[in-house]
Amino acid sequence: MNDYPEITTYGRILMGPGPSGVHPRVLRALGAPILGHLDPEFITIMNRTKDLLAWVFETKNEFTIPISGTGSAGMETALVNFIEPGDRVLVCVNGLFGTRMADIVERCGGELEVIEGEWGKIIEPDVVEKRLKARPAKIVAIVHAETSTGVLQPLEPVAQIAHRYGAMLVVDAVTSLGGTAVRVDETDIDVCYSGTQKCLSCPPGLAPITVGPRAAQRLAARKSKVQSWYLDLTMLHSYWGRERFYHHTAPVNMIYALYESLRIIHEEGLERRYERHLLHSRALGAGVAAMGLRLFAQEGYRAPMLMAVAIPEGVDDAAVRRYLLSNYRLEIGGGLGPLKGRIWRVGLMGHSCNSENVVLLLAGLEGALAAQGMPVQPGAGIAAAREVYKASGM
Amino acid sequence: MNDYPEITTYGRILMGPGPSGVHPRVLRALGAPILGHLDPEFITIMNRTKDLLAWVFETKNEFTIPISGTGSAGMETALVNFIEPGDRVLVCVNGLFGTRMADIVERCGGELEVIEGEWGKIIEPDVVEKRLKARPAKIVAIVHAETSTGVLQPLEPVAQIAHRYGAMLVVDAVTSLGGTAVRVDETDIDVCYSGTQKCLSCPPGLAPITVGPRAAQRLAARKSKVQSWYLDLTMLHSYWGRERFYHHTAPVNMIYALYESLRIIHEEGLERRYERHLLHSRALGAGVAAMGLRLFAQEGYRAPMLMAVAIPEGVDDAAVRRYLLSNYRLEIGGGLGPLKGRIWRVGLMGHSCNSENVVLLLAGLEGALAAQGMPVQPGAGIAAAREVYKASGM
Repeated sequence: MNDYPEITTYGRILMGPGPSGVHPRVLRALGAPILGHLDPEFITIMNRTKDLLAWVFETKNEFTIPISGTGSAGMETALVNFIEPGDRVLVCVNGLFGTRMADIVERCGGELEVIEGEWGKIIEPDVVEKRLKARPAKIVAIVHAETSTGVLQPLEPVAQIAHRYGAMLVVDAVTSLGGTAVRVDETDIDVCYSGTQKCLSCPPGLAPITVGPRAAQRLAARKSKVQSWYLDLTMLHSYWGRERFYHHTAPVNMIYALYESLRIIHEEGLERRYERHLLHSRALGAGVAAMGLRLFAQEGYRAPMLMAVAIPEGVDDAAVRRYLLSNYRLEIGGGLGPLKGRIWRVGLMGHSCNSENVVLLLAGLEGALAAQGMPVQPGAGIAAAREVYKASGM
Repeated sequence: MNDYPEITTYGRILMGPGPSGVHPRVLRALGAPILGHLDPEFITIMNRTKDLLAWVFETKNEFTIPISGTGSAGMETALVNFIEPGDRVLVCVNGLFGTRMADIVERCGGELEVIEGEWGKIIEPDVVEKRLKARPAKIVAIVHAETSTGVLQPLEPVAQIAHRYGAMLVVDAVTSLGGTAVRVDETDIDVCYSGTQKCLSCPPGLAPITVGPRAAQRLAARKSKVQSWYLDLTMLHSYWGRERFYHHTAPVNMIYALYESLRIIHEEGLERRYERHLLHSRALGAGVAAMGLRLFAQEGYRAPMLMAVAIPEGVDDAAVRRYLLSNYRLEIGGGLGPLKGRIWRVGLMGHSCNSENVVLLLAGLEGALAAQGMPVQPGAGIAAAREVYKASGM
C-alpha cells in the first residue's frame, strides 16, 4: 500500500480563482452519514437547499436547483436547454469564460454571434444594443464576474436591452454569486447559474441554477429534445420537484455541504456578506497599490472577489506563486490563455475573504518580489491595507 | 435559523440499488482540507486515483478517469464522444438503463437500433449476432448489471461478436464494477463506465470511465466536435493527463473520497471482493427462498450485488419498505417503471455487503411480511442463510 498512502494533507490557504477556503462546518457536513437519494430525510434537505439557493439568487423562481456537476456543467445546462438548432445567440466575450460560452453555443447547434470585447474591460451595453438592433437574437449570454480578468460586468442595462429586443438573458454568476449582488429578480435575469467553489465556499462539484418564468416558458415550448440527457432541465426539475421523478442519483454528501455553506451565508446575511467582500477587496487593492503593483481590470468595474494583478516587468510569475505556496501554504492563481504570465489572479471569496488572508498575502508578495530583486518598501502594503481597515472602524 | 437546522442525520443501512453504505474512512477523506485543483499535492492524488481506477477496471488503458458527474453522466460521456450524426448504434434493452442508453443515442444524433429484450432476462448473444449480420453498426451498447432487474449480462460473447462485425462495445458497469469481475482488457471492452455509489462504496457524484485503444482512435478521428463541452473526453483527458490543460475545476473532495474508497478495495483485493459479494448474495438468496419468496431475475444470471425479489401477491410494497425504514433504519429499493410494485431491489454492494446486513434484512422482511398477515415460518430465512455461511467456513 506504500504506493497509495492515505490523504494527510494540511490543506492550503486558498486565494486563487477558486476553489476557495471551506468552513470546517462545511467539511463536517460533507462527512455526515449517507442517506438514500429518495430518503424522506434527504428530500427535506433537498427542499431546504432549494429554498436557500433561491434566497442567495434573490429570486422567487421555484425552478432553482443545483446541477450535479461543476460550474461548467451549469454553463452547459443554461445554454443547451434554451437553444434549439438555428437559434441565434449573442455571446459577449471579454475573457475565457465568454469564449467557452461561445464554444458551447456552437456545439448546441445555435447560430453564434459574438461581441468581441477587450479582455479586462466590460462589454458596453450600447454595443449590445447596436448588435441586437441590427440582428435580433433569441438569447444574450454574458459573464457577470469574468474569472479570467477580474472584471465585474454591470448587468441591469444589458438585461433591459436584451428584453427590449425580445431576447432572453443568460448570466454566468459562477464567481459572483454570494460575493456581490446578483439579484436575479430585480435585475430581471432569465437564466442564471453559478458554481459552489467560489463565494459560496463549498467544495467544487455542484452548479446552482435558476430559471425564470420567460425561460421556463421557452423550455416548455421546445420542439426538439434537449441534446443532453444528463443536463435536461425538465427532467431535473421533476426530480427536484414534487413528482420526485427518478432521474439520476443526487450527489448526497455534496448536497449536504452545499446546504451547510448556504446556512452559513444565511447566518451572515447577504448585504453584510457583500460589504465584507468589498471591504477586504479595498484593503487588498490599497496594499497592492502601495507596493507599486498595478491592477489589470478596468477601474470602476473590478470584481470584489477576484483581483487581477499585473505582473511587473521582469518578475517570474511561477517563481512568485511557488514562493507563496512553499513559504506560506498560500495559493494564488496565474493568468489564463493570453494572460498567462501577465497577471496573477487573487481570490477573496467567501470563507477566504478576511483580513488575515489579506495581510498574509501582502506579506508574502513583498517577500516574493524582494526575493526577485524588485525594490519594495518593507511594510508599505500592509500599512496601506491597515489604513483601509481603520477607516472602516475595524 | 429554525427553518434551516443543521444536518444531524444518523444515516441509514443502505441495502437499496445505490447509494450503498460508505466506510467511515471514506467519509473522513471527504472532509479532508481542500486543495486547489492544480495544486501539486492534489495532482498526485489525481494520478493515484487514475492508477487505482485502471486497476479496478482491470485494464492497461491509460485513458481512465472519473467524470465529474454521477453514473448517468458516465453513460452520456460513453455515448456522446463516440457517436457522430448518422452513426448506427445497436442498444440492448432489457431494463431501464438500456432504455436510457437508447434515449441518449437519439439525442446524440445516432441512428438508433434496439434489441428489445425481456426485463429480467439476459440479451442472448446470438440475437446480437443476427442483428449485426443483418445491418452492421458502429457501436453495440449493453448493460452489465441491470440495476432495474438484477440481471447480470455475460459480456465476453457479446464483445467477440461486436468486434467480429467491426463494432465497438460500450458497457455500462455502473452497478457491477468492484462487485463482480468486469475485466475490461480480458473481456475486450472498448468503453466502460461506472458510478461511485454502488460497489465502489463511495458517495454518488463521480463516474469512472475507461477508454480502450480502438475507442481512442475513433475519438481522434472524429470529424465533428463532441456535442457536449462538459463531457468532451479529449479535453478531459488532457486535463487529467500530463498537459494539465485547464478544463473544469475537479470536484476535489469527491476525488479524495473516491481515492480512499479505491484504497480500501485495493487492501481487500479484487478476487476476495468478488467472492465476498457472491457469498453474501448466496446467503441472502437462500434466506429469501426459505421464506417462500421468489427471485425475479433469470436463474444463472443473477447479479450478486443486486437481488430483485418478487413481491408476493397481496403484499403492500410501500408498507414493507416503510416498515424496514422505520423499524430498522434499513433502506431497500422498489421497482422502476413497469416493475413498480412488482419487485423489491435489495443491494449488497461494497461496504453494505456483509453478514450483519443479510441477517438484519431477513429479520426485517420476516417482521414486515408477518405484519401484513403473510404466513412466514419464524427464523427460517436466517437459518437458511446461516447454513450457507457455515458451509463456506464462516
